Amino acid sequence: MFASERENMKITDIKVTPSLGAENRHWSLLKIFTDEGIVGLGEWAGGPIEQLKQMLIGRDPTNINQLHYDHLWQMQGRGAGVEIALWDIRGKQLNAPMHELLGGKLRDRIRVYCDCHSGAHWTREDYQRRWQETRASGQLDPVYETSAYVSMAKEVVAEGYTAIKFDLDVPNPWKLDAYDRSISRRQHHHIVTTIESLRQAIGPYTDLSIDLHGSFNLADALRICKDVEHLDLLWLEDPIRWEWGNVAALAKICQQTETPICTGEIFYGAKMFRELMEQQACDLLEPDIPHSGGAIEIRRIAELAEMYHMSVAPHYMRSAITGMAAVHICSTLPNFLALEHHSRNIPLWGTMLDIKNPIQQGYINVPDGPGLGVDLDEEAIATALPAGVPLWS
Amino acid sequence: MFASERENMKITDIKVTPSLGAENRHWSLLKIFTDEGIVGLGEWAGGPIEQLKQMLIGRDPTNINQLHYDHLWQMQGRGAGVEIALWDIRGKQLNAPMHELLGGKLRDRIRVYCDCHSGAHWTREDYQRRWQETRASGQLDPVYETSAYVSMAKEVVAEGYTAIKFDLDVPNPWKLDAYDRSISRRQHHHIVTTIESLRQAIGPYTDLSIDLHGSFNLADALRICKDVEHLDLLWLEDPIRWEWGNVAALAKICQQTETPICTGEIFYGAKMFRELMEQQACDLLEPDIPHSGGAIEIRRIAELAEMYHMSVAPHYMRSAITGMAAVHICSTLPNFLALEHHSRNIPLWGTMLDIKNPIQQGYINVPDGPGLGVDLDEEAIATALPAGVPLWS
Repeated sequence: MFASERENMKITDIKVTPSLGAENRHWSLLKIFTDEGIVGLGEWAGGPIEQLKQMLIGRDPTNINQLHYDHLWQMQGRGAGVEIALWDIRGKQLNAPMHELLGGKLRDRIRVYCDCHSGAHWTREDYQRRWQETRASGQLDPVYETSAYVSMAKEVVAEGYTAIKFDLDVPNPWKLDAYDRSISRRQHHHIVTTIESLRQAIGPYTDLSIDLHGSFNLADALRICKDVEHLDLLWLEDPIRWEWGNVAALAKICQQTETPICTGEIFYGAKMFRELMEQQACDLLEPDIPHSGGAIEIRRIAELAEMYHMSVAPHYMRSAITGMAAVHICSTLPNFLALEHHSRNIPLWGTMLDIKNPIQQGYINVPDGPGLGVDLDEEAIATALPAGVPLWS
Repeated sequence: MFASERENMKITDIKVTPSLGAENRHWSLLKIFTDEGIVGLGEWAGGPIEQLKQMLIGRDPTNINQLHYDHLWQMQGRGAGVEIALWDIRGKQLNAPMHELLGGKLRDRIRVYCDCHSGAHWTREDYQRRWQETRASGQLDPVYETSAYVSMAKEVVAEGYTAIKFDLDVPNPWKLDAYDRSISRRQHHHIVTTIESLRQAIGPYTDLSIDLHGSFNLADALRICKDVEHLDLLWLEDPIRWEWGNVAALAKICQQTETPICTGEIFYGAKMFRELMEQQACDLLEPDIPHSGGAIEIRRIAELAEMYHMSVAPHYMRSAITGMAAVHICSTLPNFLALEHHSRNIPLWGTMLDIKNPIQQGYINVPDGPGLGVDLDEEAIATALPAGVPLWS
């Protein structure tokens, strides 16, 4: 039967979970139901879904381009989490894994790098509490001691990861002002010696990245980049924030240091990376899935980067559903370097799917089942909710 | 059955036709055979296929990304003609039209513009003969009289086309030197008045484009662009050749005229269009299918153009097989303007498929059958070959 002769599939309903709680970084999962009984799994950024239902119910979920250009791109990253469910539906309909719908995988497993955060895994609440305590005490929190970073690095590398990342814009008693973005000499010393100790601890061949989250002024951030050149970082991430009209500032840093500069987790869509590329303002891109895009926009971003001889190392902080979509997408990108794992401290990440603990020795196998190729373990997920709260509504 | 559990499909053989003759612009068709009995249709740029067979036989035709990045991109446009056959195979395997494999069509029919060439349809041999005769006689060939252009325009518009294109870098007695690329005053007058007469003949609402094939010097080409601004061309194509290291020259023209500048039929792959975009050196792109790419690279080129607020109007001169692949690709590009039809003077174009004369009132319906959604009429094609010459070998 030709496509033209088939009745089009139709979306009949959409359901989402409540927030799975602060300890699970407020993930919310999404299901798209169809009149053929196929259900697609995606991720929702939270909030009401009435408008989303109005857009999508009655539409053909298999024409992903059309839904993207009609609606989802306007929702930016919120729409990209929904797009994941459309690829899942389409793959299940055709009995083909998502990577085949993207032209075919170039690799069978995906290299994952572990975001170790610092000597302690990061949560937003924790980070703010530690800043307050540090300001009150004038003492460095033990989890930000160089030795704590080194312990964490050894622990994570022992799990088989070939690449790790640490944050070094952390609470410290040497920051002279709560608002000004300068780095004091003492703080600079702590940052550089911690990176030196990390490199020494993990040896010369494990990849090491450092994230500064755009926390600092240009001159101070540049000095960090220069002073760690001998430590051969895989990348230094976001030395400054360029996103609001200051590509030239990042270009200035990038053109003065051999430390590779990586950025890209803030903006949605390839267009927002264009000027960055034109000005040779970075060396790698780390678009967030789905915040920067789903398969459609992430592929565009990767292909743009490739035109400028750059690799991509996608960022993501969402659940393992987005993680598996990311695995499919990354398997099809020629210039893929590594995929972030931001959830080592979140047990649910490893238990929420039918495949348990998908990361083994720092890699995730690319699923070959239809669509995303994974299913939810709803019993495991339900434990994140208070008793009596329904999982889907 | 999961993809991982299936035996991969394998390419078992490749066959091509001989050149279908000068009158059919030396088209050569291609078939890829598989161990599942599925046959993919593509187009071949001519010459021996031993190396192609070595590359592809035994490989899985359904992983198009892998074959593209392993081999086909290195063959540039020759490889892109082969890529078409891979999409045809994949679509037939999944019982899905090619446009669905590219994420879904955004439109059901494709606007076609007719390349009218001049007062006479172009062939390479004809063009060269007319130049020789014109130089010998010192007279303008009647097919290049303004009145001949006007007749052709009326004839083609009567067929329902909403956009037409003419060449105006044609044999003429006023070109002062066979090699120098200047435009004489008399020649300039002929070009501009012909465009004026064309606009008058077709009225204000039919789109009109002019192709100069990069035949002229910058200053003379710019003067043409400026002098026809009041005629509201859809585009003026290739006022100069920028392709060999002279993007700045085209940018200089483009930034001085409101006449939209279109280019892009020479190079393969999105990377070659990057500098053109960065320098805002044109207003539209006309990548050739498959010379500039198959679905993979044409989509990249279109998406690059879209980042710079440009539409694409793909060029192609090949057979209706490439034409139908182009229709599928164009149906999925948001920034698609119109597809070239270069073969109005080639009867085989309209008879070689199971669907006869696919262009109706200036549009082609997007096929919804599996793969390309068309088949060859091999009896019709065989008439292009001398008796006894086999169609496939």
